Amino acid sequence: MRLKRLLIGRPLKSEEAQGQHLSKTSALAIFSSSALSSVSYGPEQIALALAVPGLITYGYFLYALIPILALLAAVTISYTQVAKANPGGGGAYSVAKENLGELPALAAGAALFSDYTLTVAVSITSGTEALTSAFPALIPHRLLIDLAVLIGVLMLINLRGVSESAKAFVFPTYLFVGGILGVIGLGLYQTWAGTAPVIPAVSEEKQGMNWLIFFLILRAFANGCSSMTGIEAIANGVPTFKKPQSRNAVITTYWMSGLLAVMLCGISFLILHHHILPVPGVTMMSQLTEETVGRGALYYYIQMVTMLILFLAANTAYNGLPPLMSLMARDGYLPRYLGERGERLSYSNGILLLTAASALLLIVFDGDMESLIALYSVGVFISFTIAQCGMVVHWRRQQGENWKWRLAVNAFGALITGVVVIILTVTKFLDGAWIVLLFVPLMVMGFRKIRVHYVEMGKELVLSADEPLSYMDHPIRKNCVIVPISYPTRSAVKALRYARKIGDEIIAVHIAENEETARAVAAVWSGRDPELELVTLYSPYRLVIQPLLDFVQKTADKQAPDDCVTVLIPEVRTERWWHRLLHNQTGLVLRTLLIRRENVVVTTITFRVHH
Amino acid sequence: MRLKRLLIGRPLKSEEAQGQHLSKTSALAIFSSSALSSVSYGPEQIALALAVPGLITYGYFLYALIPILALLAAVTISYTQVAKANPGGGGAYSVAKENLGELPALAAGAALFSDYTLTVAVSITSGTEALTSAFPALIPHRLLIDLAVLIGVLMLINLRGVSESAKAFVFPTYLFVGGILGVIGLGLYQTWAGTAPVIPAVSEEKQGMNWLIFFLILRAFANGCSSMTGIEAIANGVPTFKKPQSRNAVITTYWMSGLLAVMLCGISFLILHHHILPVPGVTMMSQLTEETVGRGALYYYIQMVTMLILFLAANTAYNGLPPLMSLMARDGYLPRYLGERGERLSYSNGILLLTAASALLLIVFDGDMESLIALYSVGVFISFTIAQCGMVVHWRRQQGENWKWRLAVNAFGALITGVVVIILTVTKFLDGAWIVLLFVPLMVMGFRKIRVHYVEMGKELVLSADEPLSYMDHPIRKNCVIVPISYPTRSAVKALRYARKIGDEIIAVHIAENEETARAVAAVWSGRDPELELVTLYSPYRLVIQPLLDFVQKTADKQAPDDCVTVLIPEVRTERWWHRLLHNQTGLVLRTLLIRRENVVVTTITFRVHH
Repeated sequence: MRLKRLLIGRPLKSEEAQGQHLSKTSALAIFSSSALSSVSYGPEQIALALAVPGLITYGYFLYALIPILALLAAVTISYTQVAKANPGGGGAYSVAKENLGELPALAAGAALFSDYTLTVAVSITSGTEALTSAFPALIPHRLLIDLAVLIGVLMLINLRGVSESAKAFVFPTYLFVGGILGVIGLGLYQTWAGTAPVIPAVSEEKQGMNWLIFFLILRAFANGCSSMTGIEAIANGVPTFKKPQSRNAVITTYWMSGLLAVMLCGISFLILHHHILPVPGVTMMSQLTEETVGRGALYYYIQMVTMLILFLAANTAYNGLPPLMSLMARDGYLPRYLGERGERLSYSNGILLLTAASALLLIVFDGDMESLIALYSVGVFISFTIAQCGMVVHWRRQQGENWKWRLAVNAFGALITGVVVIILTVTKFLDGAWIVLLFVPLMVMGFRKIRVHYVEMGKELVLSADEPLSYMDHPIRKNCVIVPISYPTRSAVKALRYARKIGDEIIAVHIAENEETARAVAAVWSGRDPELELVTLYSPYRLVIQPLLDFVQKTADKQAPDDCVTVLIPEVRTERWWHRLLHNQTGLVLRTLLIRRENVVVTTITFRVHH
Repeated sequence: MRLKRLLIGRPLKSEEAQGQHLSKTSALAIFSSSALSSVSYGPEQIALALAVPGLITYGYFLYALIPILALLAAVTISYTQVAKANPGGGGAYSVAKENLGELPALAAGAALFSDYTLTVAVSITSGTEALTSAFPALIPHRLLIDLAVLIGVLMLINLRGVSESAKAFVFPTYLFVGGILGVIGLGLYQTWAGTAPVIPAVSEEKQGMNWLIFFLILRAFANGCSSMTGIEAIANGVPTFKKPQSRNAVITTYWMSGLLAVMLCGISFLILHHHILPVPGVTMMSQLTEETVGRGALYYYIQMVTMLILFLAANTAYNGLPPLMSLMARDGYLPRYLGERGERLSYSNGILLLTAASALLLIVFDGDMESLIALYSVGVFISFTIAQCGMVVHWRRQQGENWKWRLAVNAFGALITGVVVIILTVTKFLDGAWIVLLFVPLMVMGFRKIRVHYVEMGKELVLSADEPLSYMDHPIRKNCVIVPISYPTRSAVKALRYARKIGDEIIAVHIAENEETARAVAAVWSGRDPELELVTLYSPYRLVIQPLLDFVQKTADKQAPDDCVTVLIPEVRTERWWHRLLHNQTGLVLRTLLIRRENVVVTTITFRVHH
């Protein structure tokens, strides 16, 4: 408990939930870390697709990058519409639930679940790669570092709660943006000054366009779409902005996308210009930084802030998924305990679940970025598409100012992101996209089954308004108490004393292996209490629990409708934990088995041994 | 349950415990598998000690073998004395307990525990090596095979019970002895016929005796002592012999030792004659069999029966340790449940414990024979020594026919095995002997602590003969029942109905996060049952369990001495297992925490949801 207090902090009252509101600059740092940090792997992913062994086709880089920038513009404009229309927050799930109905909402929920979990997995993997690029000695310990960051840092910080996390997380984003822009600026200057190497012409050569090359470009485009992950964060976080909330959110969205586009172009330019090729164990960001600024203090600065912002990006999932799960839990689609805030006001169960799911992903994929990113992008664009479709319906229903124009923007967004989903599915199917396409429908089924359970259980459990309380008209008539005993001990006597108080009929039961012990036990009890009704059950196979269960069942079957049966289990509790290993757990097993039965009340009465 | 019946068989009645008695030939096969099978690793261990890298000193082989044969003779004669004197069985622990007192008996118990566990580990490892020598493709799967044999075969057979195990286990011993004697005979014939290779002279060369060589020979001797493990089995198994028990046991002991000596000499001769050197992954037995009979059907026959008898040897530990633990448990030195027979009359808990301990050894040492054997021999010779010392005291007390002669035999046995313990400790200290020397005193301490616990607990728990039964003179006056509730549900109503039956005072408790829900819950209950005493506990930190525990404690503290407090926990039980994951386990946690308290009775009342 002490350790918990130290790590998690004191409990917080429910009224303390009213949070702080964020300025544009803070909000940009907090919500855009996920989107901005993706420049550290997005351009690299494009290059990876084009660096086919034996055939470096960097000449087609722009064929992938330009559509990505166009897509970024379209998605940004669509999401400013979301921010305007949906100041309540909640993202694709809420938008779909309000406008499209249950199934699309659940699909969005499932896609978002996979997105957020993958945000954590991808960002942590990538952040650790930034670290291990700078310090190659750490490469063998990558998975360990991943898990340490996940469990030791992110989980704990988030269990402490969101307010602290917000404050700490503003600077790294700006340090990162400043550093990257600096590297890009220096790189451009070097190019202008002519000090940088020249690109080998062979790499720029283009073959005639054929299906293979087309597919390669599509894959490069699909890989590069990972640069766009996290862009929806601001639209989902509108309620935390200072007023005017929507306007501030829209401006911040433009700033974020602008920065993202500039950094994407700059990094892509430097990759091409320095002709960076994939090297195992070293990220392209690390290579191009080294080419530009040398391996000095500035290089380590860039690697460290890249690592920091990526870990921050992982953190955004902790701000996103637990509240979403809470929303879905309150709608009955997830276990109710995911809907409750913990003692620090954070959704602790959701945080634990997200940590477990991410750890599983990290372990299963062993930090293989390309597979994780294939999974990631598909989920992200599915939720983009659903959100945009929802907005189309929203504008048609609401028909405010300029509604036709707005509908058109979102319809175009839906169309284009839908096409991206298809491209991603086709080009990355075997790389892992199939997992998401299998997972989303399965989760949707799961959500619905959970809700059905809650509804049906509610029907059975909740009293209808006009139903009388049974205990007022039909009291219990007779309570028959069964007490398992052996030789007289203080714990048995304590149990019998309680049985006398609550029971109308008391049956003491002794389970005997043979007649000899049966007679001995009967004699010693009857010598002390001649009135005790002692039933002896013979157990030739030396089993204790089964004969007792059978006897309880038989006794319960014999009762009249308004009678009840109570089994009173005398429990001896020892002081030290290892003493408990010396005793069989018959009481525990008996209790666990009897509690399943509806017609038996199970009572435990404890006698403590103090030595 | 069905699977259990299929694997373990029907339960057996206690009267069926009266077992069958064994003829000399059956007993030889059953009890000597452990001793005889050790020829498959004993001579190899001598050779391993002498095959120092860069210096093959096989010329000293006899310097180790001859003392081992002498030791074998001495131990055999000593153990025939044990067999005569101790027809009750039980081994070193019983002998020491009767004659030497508590501490030596417990030391013997600890040493035997380590012996038996190591018998299993060493024999299984060695048996698997016989298999993988014949089929090298299996070498990477050794540990898996070890564990499969341990858990899939030995544990199951022994849970079924001893009578079946005895019948099945007679043939392999004779097949093994026949096979080995055949190989030895053929080898001798080949030597006589001059067809076998000649030993290189360099290997027979002897250096001048110096301390290094002396230490080498001592190590070889210590390694070779592993050939003698299992020799005590017959003396411990006297009660299972046909009458005249002692006489038959003595004759069988001589037969066993004779066979053992012949096989030891024969195999050692063949190792020297064919100049077998250690080869990773292939046992020396496999090499010399291949040299003698070629890699034909006969070779595979020898490997298979070697494997079989080694697995049989592992099985002898299952016949030895669980009854010993049962004996010690009945003396209070081990948890009582180790003293009880399972439904098949086998000591199932002891069998499970032995399996777990052996599996742990196999996994920790990853099947490294030399370390395991170092552990093994030390434990075995400690128990030999204690048993012989016990016999010395026995003869002095009893003073029967020829008692002085017998005392002298056992005193000599004690002396010589004691010296071997010292040699083993010195030469194999770092190889693992230290583990046993640490483990034995720790276990002895543990045994004593367990007994102290049982004695002290008995004093607190058992009523003295003249103590009155408290429930007859001091009945409980008032029962105060606390029922945690929320909105009216059928499960809450069921609990309240029961509370009305058993309680004199009923307190319904509602844990509210804020005043709004508190008022709502109070209103809906008072509208239906104006007389219900509803207490609202505010929980600003959204905790449910802690406020309730505090309230229960406060209520319990307020009671008069003859009053009692019952906490009634309404439990909702769902039909399907996965539905249970959708509900928090507040009831379970509450029950677990409350059961620890002596002043509270904990009652669970279950409402089943049937959809």
